[in-house]
Amino acid sequence: MKVQSSRDFKLQREVDYGTPEQNKAVKQIVADIKQEGDAALFRYTEKFDGAQVDSSNIRVTEEELKAAYNHVEDSFVAAIRAAADNIRAFHARQKRNSWMDLQPDGTILGQIIRPLQRVGVYVPGGKASYPSSVLMNVIPAQIAGVPEIVMVTPPATGGKEGIDPYILVAAAEAGVNEIYRVGGAQAVAALAFGTESIAPVDKICGPGNIYVALAKREVYGAVDIDSIAGPSEIVVLADDTAEPAYVAADLLSQAEHDEMASAILVTPSQRLADAVAAEVERQLRELPREAIARASVDNYGAIIVVESLEEGISVVNRLAPEHLEIVAQDPMALTGAVQNAGAIFLGPYSSEPVGDYFAGPNHIIPTNGTARFSSPVDVDDFIKKSSLIYYSKEALLRDGSTIIELARREGLEAHARAVEIRLENEAKGGVERGE
Amino acid sequence: MKVQSSRDFKLQREVDYGTPEQNKAVKQIVADIKQEGDAALFRYTEKFDGAQVDSSNIRVTEEELKAAYNHVEDSFVAAIRAAADNIRAFHARQKRNSWMDLQPDGTILGQIIRPLQRVGVYVPGGKASYPSSVLMNVIPAQIAGVPEIVMVTPPATGGKEGIDPYILVAAAEAGVNEIYRVGGAQAVAALAFGTESIAPVDKICGPGNIYVALAKREVYGAVDIDSIAGPSEIVVLADDTAEPAYVAADLLSQAEHDEMASAILVTPSQRLADAVAAEVERQLRELPREAIARASVDNYGAIIVVESLEEGISVVNRLAPEHLEIVAQDPMALTGAVQNAGAIFLGPYSSEPVGDYFAGPNHIIPTNGTARFSSPVDVDDFIKKSSLIYYSKEALLRDGSTIIELARREGLEAHARAVEIRLENEAKGGVERGE
Repeated sequence: MKVQSSRDFKLQREVDYGTPEQNKAVKQIVADIKQEGDAALFRYTEKFDGAQVDSSNIRVTEEELKAAYNHVEDSFVAAIRAAADNIRAFHARQKRNSWMDLQPDGTILGQIIRPLQRVGVYVPGGKASYPSSVLMNVIPAQIAGVPEIVMVTPPATGGKEGIDPYILVAAAEAGVNEIYRVGGAQAVAALAFGTESIAPVDKICGPGNIYVALAKREVYGAVDIDSIAGPSEIVVLADDTAEPAYVAADLLSQAEHDEMASAILVTPSQRLADAVAAEVERQLRELPREAIARASVDNYGAIIVVESLEEGISVVNRLAPEHLEIVAQDPMALTGAVQNAGAIFLGPYSSEPVGDYFAGPNHIIPTNGTARFSSPVDVDDFIKKSSLIYYSKEALLRDGSTIIELARREGLEAHARAVEIRLENEAKGGVERGE
Repeated sequence: MKVQSSRDFKLQREVDYGTPEQNKAVKQIVADIKQEGDAALFRYTEKFDGAQVDSSNIRVTEEELKAAYNHVEDSFVAAIRAAADNIRAFHARQKRNSWMDLQPDGTILGQIIRPLQRVGVYVPGGKASYPSSVLMNVIPAQIAGVPEIVMVTPPATGGKEGIDPYILVAAAEAGVNEIYRVGGAQAVAALAFGTESIAPVDKICGPGNIYVALAKREVYGAVDIDSIAGPSEIVVLADDTAEPAYVAADLLSQAEHDEMASAILVTPSQRLADAVAAEVERQLRELPREAIARASVDNYGAIIVVESLEEGISVVNRLAPEHLEIVAQDPMALTGAVQNAGAIFLGPYSSEPVGDYFAGPNHIIPTNGTARFSSPVDVDDFIKKSSLIYYSKEALLRDGSTIIELARREGLEAHARAVEIRLENEAKGGVERGE
């Protein structure tokens, strides 16, 4: 791992917008699903997943969901339950109430908070299937009060029954029982526009491959989508008190995700920098995903030596990392100066996987510098707000002429008249109701 | 205005994604600004606005800002101040605090709420310049605590001094003093990527023409953007107690916005339906923007007669209007059943322009059915959240094996080892710090 100074260090990764062919293919799939519904959905599922899915078997049955428990260890069920409890407890604190401001003149202003009505969660199949992501998408929606949460996940190639039992158990533990065995762009389009078998949703979330990402982008507007996640990042800001082996292990826990993942140490300690570099090399050689982690470390990893922790913070703010660990004498005291970081892990025991799986905060966090302006998934992502305005007669008589002035100033005469007609009629003693 | 039944009524309007030529032009402008900075910005400003702008005059001076007050009526200043006070009071109630959950084992979990650092507000020039929109974009950002709020607005064609004094006064009253006289796609790109004269922002908001909308879409990802607004909508749900002249005036206040605006009355009263149809025709003939309003009413307007107010609510939820007025015997009692509406106006005196200009809630509200999943602009649009995780040694020793099980289940060995190395070392009495 290269040790370098902070001057001129810049992390640059391109967002994958797909090839023209991929874009064209996705547009076609989405258009076909929109027009033909189930017929296209079943056809594409046979084509891409090699599975015979039809209206009789597209939905996972209660029996399959129960049977999945026979294929997983009891310890896994216990672990998922414990994680779900923590995730629920954390997200429950984000829940908000509608509010009203009742004024003495009878005017009422407020904001009504309501859950989205129906949310679709995409769960990738195969090796990239992560039970923890099921919890991280479903639980905030549940806490928000979303009454219908539905999951789609591709069947294994060549078979009908191919849904990972760990995914099914995670879904069941999260409380989802409407699950369809379809995946890819066709599943995203089915969620957005609905088919005979799948009712349309208001929002689609969850990770997927490039076809899934492009399909989400394509249907955005007809429904809401979550952000399209980029490769994962970690920045560790550490001083001399940090244990090099821990720091190296945490850097590698990001690097193993993806060849484009980025793991960066920022430290004022040359000694720590050198020790971590050596530890990364030592631990790398023992990793099952060594090739991926090594590519990540070589291309997007860095050890940056800075003059001070304060300069380190300014490097962090420039990078706006998804994950930030602060391992220093007094990590809490440094946190106030952090402007941009999706999740902040403090002290030697807050290893990033603690947050990925268990502590409670969401593990879906803005990547690629977008922590400058966006936030981890939370309950707010599954609500919508309506403004409430009840203006009293007294208030309108008082404020009407001001409103008319502002409307006329903008050349919107019909706006002005909508208020004026009320002022005129009320001056005449009010309109007579009826005929 | 057509009176019809609710069966088969469907509002359909296409979103404008621009012509291929417009898309190509915007991509070129954005690329040029990104690469050349000010040079391209000044060149495009001369080309499109016919104005000679350079680094010496691009920023509106304090003197110009002060001088603008000489060109507007005192009553306008008073009206803007009163509106700004109401908007501030409403949005101040949306402000949220960071929170922490301190657990007995020493673990701390929380959510840190921070303002975005720098926000750019686009303000259209010419006839579509709305002082009220300046307030509606700037004030929520201010309440959120955004330290730098900057405005861009195009100079009038053929002159350097051409910024509408009403816009400048609204900006000054809102507290914005960093204003640049540039507009169009080139201004959006300058805000996103920065030039020698304009520092880059984290988010761009505010309305604009198709070039501005396409440029916002193009730079999204590098910065955040607000939603891209569609044509305006109003649905009035009314019973026999409603005054036809008021209902007609409110429908027309939307219809005058845009030929694609949509104004719809939903009522169980055939008598009201007929009376409103007659009133719309009568009032239409007297409107200065008659042609626009008539096109809107003819193409996207409707009077829908339903069996009951309950059926009316279900039509409303299907339409998910930007603005909803409920004018009925007991409007509050109907509000609980409304699922989808951006802003809800209750009773005979809550004419929609009251909310557009004055009451306090934001007038930037989701259009085109997106109230199903999105919300009016508010303080939340100008904050970002960071998760905070401080895990204690005690907690890690307790939960470590569960975290390791979940990580191994997902095939992420380096995640497991990052925890395991700590458990092993702590079992040996902890690592020795330093050498």
